[in-house]
Amino acid sequence: MLNRLYFEDKSQDLHKWAFEQIKDESLDIGYYNLPQQDIADILSFSSSLDDSIKTIAVIGIGGSSLGAKAIYEFIKPTKELKRNLFFFESTDPINIQNTIKSLEVSSTHFIVISKSGTTIETMAIFKYIYALQPDMKHYTFITDSGSKLEKFATKHNATVFLLPPNVGGRFSVLSIVGLLPLALSGVDIEALLKGAKDIKNSFFDNGYIQKILLTKATYYAKHHAKYHINCIFAYSESLTYFCQWYVQLWGESLGKRQRNSAFNVGLTPIGLIGPKDQHSFLQLIMEGTRDKSVTFIKIEDFENELSIPNISLEHLEDLDIINDITFSKLINMQCDSIIEAIENQKDIPLDRISIEKNDELSIGALIYYYELLTSLVGVLIDVDTYNQPGVELGKVILKQKLI
Amino acid sequence: MLNRLYFEDKSQDLHKWAFEQIKDESLDIGYYNLPQQDIADILSFSSSLDDSIKTIAVIGIGGSSLGAKAIYEFIKPTKELKRNLFFFESTDPINIQNTIKSLEVSSTHFIVISKSGTTIETMAIFKYIYALQPDMKHYTFITDSGSKLEKFATKHNATVFLLPPNVGGRFSVLSIVGLLPLALSGVDIEALLKGAKDIKNSFFDNGYIQKILLTKATYYAKHHAKYHINCIFAYSESLTYFCQWYVQLWGESLGKRQRNSAFNVGLTPIGLIGPKDQHSFLQLIMEGTRDKSVTFIKIEDFENELSIPNISLEHLEDLDIINDITFSKLINMQCDSIIEAIENQKDIPLDRISIEKNDELSIGALIYYYELLTSLVGVLIDVDTYNQPGVELGKVILKQKLI
Repeated sequence: MLNRLYFEDKSQDLHKWAFEQIKDESLDIGYYNLPQQDIADILSFSSSLDDSIKTIAVIGIGGSSLGAKAIYEFIKPTKELKRNLFFFESTDPINIQNTIKSLEVSSTHFIVISKSGTTIETMAIFKYIYALQPDMKHYTFITDSGSKLEKFATKHNATVFLLPPNVGGRFSVLSIVGLLPLALSGVDIEALLKGAKDIKNSFFDNGYIQKILLTKATYYAKHHAKYHINCIFAYSESLTYFCQWYVQLWGESLGKRQRNSAFNVGLTPIGLIGPKDQHSFLQLIMEGTRDKSVTFIKIEDFENELSIPNISLEHLEDLDIINDITFSKLINMQCDSIIEAIENQKDIPLDRISIEKNDELSIGALIYYYELLTSLVGVLIDVDTYNQPGVELGKVILKQKLI
Repeated sequence: MLNRLYFEDKSQDLHKWAFEQIKDESLDIGYYNLPQQDIADILSFSSSLDDSIKTIAVIGIGGSSLGAKAIYEFIKPTKELKRNLFFFESTDPINIQNTIKSLEVSSTHFIVISKSGTTIETMAIFKYIYALQPDMKHYTFITDSGSKLEKFATKHNATVFLLPPNVGGRFSVLSIVGLLPLALSGVDIEALLKGAKDIKNSFFDNGYIQKILLTKATYYAKHHAKYHINCIFAYSESLTYFCQWYVQLWGESLGKRQRNSAFNVGLTPIGLIGPKDQHSFLQLIMEGTRDKSVTFIKIEDFENELSIPNISLEHLEDLDIINDITFSKLINMQCDSIIEAIENQKDIPLDRISIEKNDELSIGALIYYYELLTSLVGVLIDVDTYNQPGVELGKVILKQKLI
């Protein structure tokens, strides 16, 4: 993974301070250590799952589904996977019905994920599916130690995996929450963690990524009042759900009251997919209010030779310039052209991430890179990156309506 | 369709002025008249298409695909449609390959849509598919009168439909661009236009929607410097692509330099889906910077009786409060709870749109409502709503790279 910044920040003191804060934080916050975890249990459970199970279905919402979905949808288009992976992540009845229709309940293993064990959406869907499939062999539960869901599962002799301590939902993709469904579907989770670990080591051991992340986070924090919208512009359809994962990570971590002030602060995440969104959001970036930073993500090697045939169409001969070019070359040329166009504006903070290809190593690295960046910005804008007090009120009101 | 605003604006003079501007504009800008267009040609072409054609595929990007996709994905989950509809809207080679794999070329009718006739993405994909299917009977072209693509199609005796004058891509969904693929797939385009016409009449003939739209647009324009991010929070998975259509419409129309100043202005659109995004973006709305308005969209009647079974789970008896409730009731209670939670903040501009159900009448109304709102805000922030000069530079740079 390479990352070129088109801006700089030379506040060495701030960099040093933020780095120390992260070192402190990493002793306590659970996600930092996930790249080195022992995955023997996951691999052994995964290889023991019966071959008659053709489909894995995650029942979970938010942090319990977005991460695995991001990785699965990134890997699936280019790799023949062992099992399909489905997600039940909405109370929309039509969506639930159509998802059920697309799988066979008897050959599906369900993974019920709720950190608290009482997430309304997840438990509502679980009840519905439990009525269709009461055999507990078809379920695995992932929850916090001591939760009511753990007690329920234990009572039924169902398989339970516990979340490691101090890993929040939106930072949980590289824990059992993401690893189990991914391993069962055939994603190489060792390579995934290896990708994350490379970034971790580079950051903590004075590698290339340390300077990049400190510069970028400090720039974003210092200019948060002006550039408070942070767009990812990814040139591959396979990064669509990665963008949704990023939106949760960024928005829910960085949008809140400061720890030591009465200020509400926040950085607004936007996920865009090129070239499609050149025909949509790009106009707003190029000519709208100067309140957005843009990070381009490119896949260097699509490992795909699909090309535009050498055909000349009458009256459309001007388009012969694209003949014989591979689509992967074309899409990356489009990305480069938009980068140049934005660079030309001078006042839009811009950077470019290049990942090698659609593999586990690349997406593992990208995920850990964004987790570190989020933590750094959180430190530098003085928020508690890991809580989400703002979502509680809606839950309380719902409960009142239900009783 | 009902729309409750939780804020007010009493600038009668501005309302009157904006309404007059729109009346003037509507004599010239093409989309205003689409609800009353004659669709006899479309219906007759549609009924003449051979039954051996099982699939319709749109080759188009941006305004040439987003609108039809929004409507199709809204209708499809609840209605048995005659034909599947696919979209080729990216130069991503893996996406192209996987889309091709999911259809049968010999039983597919391709609709090639490019207003200019020379859109790089569209023509690159057309060349690729043309090499697989050279029989021109399998194609219909939609383009501007006089374009090179029209000349090519005419030369090959292929079917061509021309875009009506002065209808921009992002305002073209209710023209031939959206209507043809939708009609061929079995969507009731008469009902779609009827829905749009109801909104149009209500707006222009002093109906209920006139006051609503004038109040909302004026509020957004007056407060654009503070509330410059406009979120849609839609409580149905079927509105996912509607949100993408909205993002293009809003962002590309309203993000630009003012007509009579040097200011770059812009309102940033965000599309959210509930309840999923309660576990993601909601925290940022509730506790982040106060720079966002939120519009909730609810479907009053999911016409679906799927319900949570009356099951009590050991240790999880607290959750018995959701037993026997339909999922459609639950999702709408979730929506109401979040509305109350946001209302409680006092300083977040809020409104709620209720549409009746997943049918053509409802989505036609919703689309026209948003087109009118966009035009009104455009007038009130003094931008040319219908151009997109900011996307040209990237195209020029790409062409230089290709030559």
